[in-house]
Amino acid sequence: MSEDITVREAAALLQGWDRILILTHQYPDGDTLGSGFALCRGLQLLGKTARVECSDRIPEKYDYLFEDYQQPEFEPHVICAVDVADPRLLGDKLSVYADRVELCIDHHGSNTGYARRRLLDAGSAATAELILELLREWGVRPDRMIAECLYTGIATDTGCFKYSNTTSATHRAAAELMDIGIRAELINRTMFDVKSRPRVELERLALDSMRFYFGGRCAVMFITNEMVKKAAAGENDMEGLAPIPRQIEGVWVGVTLREKADGTYKVSVRTGTHADASAICAVLGGGGHVRAAGCTLEGSDEQAAAQMLEAIRRTVPGIA
Amino acid sequence: MSEDITVREAAALLQGWDRILILTHQYPDGDTLGSGFALCRGLQLLGKTARVECSDRIPEKYDYLFEDYQQPEFEPHVICAVDVADPRLLGDKLSVYADRVELCIDHHGSNTGYARRRLLDAGSAATAELILELLREWGVRPDRMIAECLYTGIATDTGCFKYSNTTSATHRAAAELMDIGIRAELINRTMFDVKSRPRVELERLALDSMRFYFGGRCAVMFITNEMVKKAAAGENDMEGLAPIPRQIEGVWVGVTLREKADGTYKVSVRTGTHADASAICAVLGGGGHVRAAGCTLEGSDEQAAAQMLEAIRRTVPGIA
Repeated sequence: MSEDITVREAAALLQGWDRILILTHQYPDGDTLGSGFALCRGLQLLGKTARVECSDRIPEKYDYLFEDYQQPEFEPHVICAVDVADPRLLGDKLSVYADRVELCIDHHGSNTGYARRRLLDAGSAATAELILELLREWGVRPDRMIAECLYTGIATDTGCFKYSNTTSATHRAAAELMDIGIRAELINRTMFDVKSRPRVELERLALDSMRFYFGGRCAVMFITNEMVKKAAAGENDMEGLAPIPRQIEGVWVGVTLREKADGTYKVSVRTGTHADASAICAVLGGGGHVRAAGCTLEGSDEQAAAQMLEAIRRTVPGIA
Repeated sequence: MSEDITVREAAALLQGWDRILILTHQYPDGDTLGSGFALCRGLQLLGKTARVECSDRIPEKYDYLFEDYQQPEFEPHVICAVDVADPRLLGDKLSVYADRVELCIDHHGSNTGYARRRLLDAGSAATAELILELLREWGVRPDRMIAECLYTGIATDTGCFKYSNTTSATHRAAAELMDIGIRAELINRTMFDVKSRPRVELERLALDSMRFYFGGRCAVMFITNEMVKKAAAGENDMEGLAPIPRQIEGVWVGVTLREKADGTYKVSVRTGTHADASAICAVLGGGGHVRAAGCTLEGSDEQAAAQMLEAIRRTVPGIA
């Protein structure tokens, strides 16, 4: 297990190191990239040599983070991971470093403790909040690039300050970063407003498939292989579909059934305060959290839906 | 024209008054209601008699703001308007007060100056930010109800801190309110995540109608009377549809054509950095802002779309 350290200890450690390779997680998101590049730039402002790597190609929408930014080539002396909860999330290319991570900076309570030392705060909405604390500790005032990286991490991990992980510290961090003169409107538009055409088409087809049960208290939506093909949708276009059924007024239980390549269904269940998603999924051999859980089902689309409805009927008091 | 006054002056005025009637604007939103009820409650904590009125019925989704809250009946001595930029926005029921507004608290640069005195800050993202400043001036610490009202005003007017009107002061206000112990998750879910079934159905039908032109740089979406009828959608279900076409990747100009009762089309144009919405609409006798503008068109749906496409072709460099 990792030795847990404080922000001050992590700041001191990093100040004593050089030639630092920063690892981000696969399928990179705004927080792992924003944290990684902000840390890298902060270390460079301290006179260090540092660079960021990711197993996957960085999606184009993050290009604004790295305009005119060249990463140096060097043989790393120290490996540091940011926002990587589990070494398996390093992905293929970076898996060679899994046993050599000196310091992991993370906010996932599920962090497996794979690194030698760990700066972990599960109360932080984003790893980027911890990077901002490191910079404060060093007395490094973020430049615009750092501030935009950190804002991106915070905004994306909080759904633009909407999710329950948002705290007053999150808002104070955002205020501090805005005072530096970041392009918050551009970032928010890029992160939250732009949808690909295949994504819009897939959403339209999925909405077409939505059916209501139990007097409108349950909504069931399908995403079949045929829809995905028809919409020409890729893996990136699938994000954020599962919450849609539960967002409809009056719905206690929202179910999304996504057909997989082998014909089974990956089921996502989302609930409001009236129902327990993990209890529903437990009936079908799955699990998760109270508000968001999942399971796998076999059979035709009708059979899969029927199994879900029966599990909901048995589990949710007052729904039938 | 109004006499413009400072927060300190407005705070002193209100402290000298009693029996204060607070007016909100018609089709009430989170900022006019949140500001109105927060101001009312703040005045009550100062020992004043105050009440809030609105020409329209307050939508149910705001119920959480006023749980267990009874408004007193009294003959008003002073009339105060919040977030009301123009006396015509008071609506039918409250129009009798239009010439008697002693103080207007507002953040709209377009405020017409109809009130005797005006506390106006167009740099505030929400009128609720000004109410928070008044409370600070009085030394009144917001209770949970006040804090939830103010957070609602700020969150709704900034699209949950996403729009370009959001400043570091907005985030600092949110942090201060969160520290009071508000139910931010409940508020955000209620304001931003819940869609009515008719709204979802209307969105589906509107997406079905979407067509792309100029190699995907222009998207045109229709909302016809037939769709509205089929979806059983009301006026409240129409909000937030106009931005959809422009949110699609690669789209420079997003056009929404909404059919009106008389068969004409109310056109909303939204643009990114490549096109000027007001220039496009000016060609067709309309106007607005660089990123959002509108006009009215007549004829069949095909004729209306053709006129728009011609205006876009003539106005937007490099689109054709």
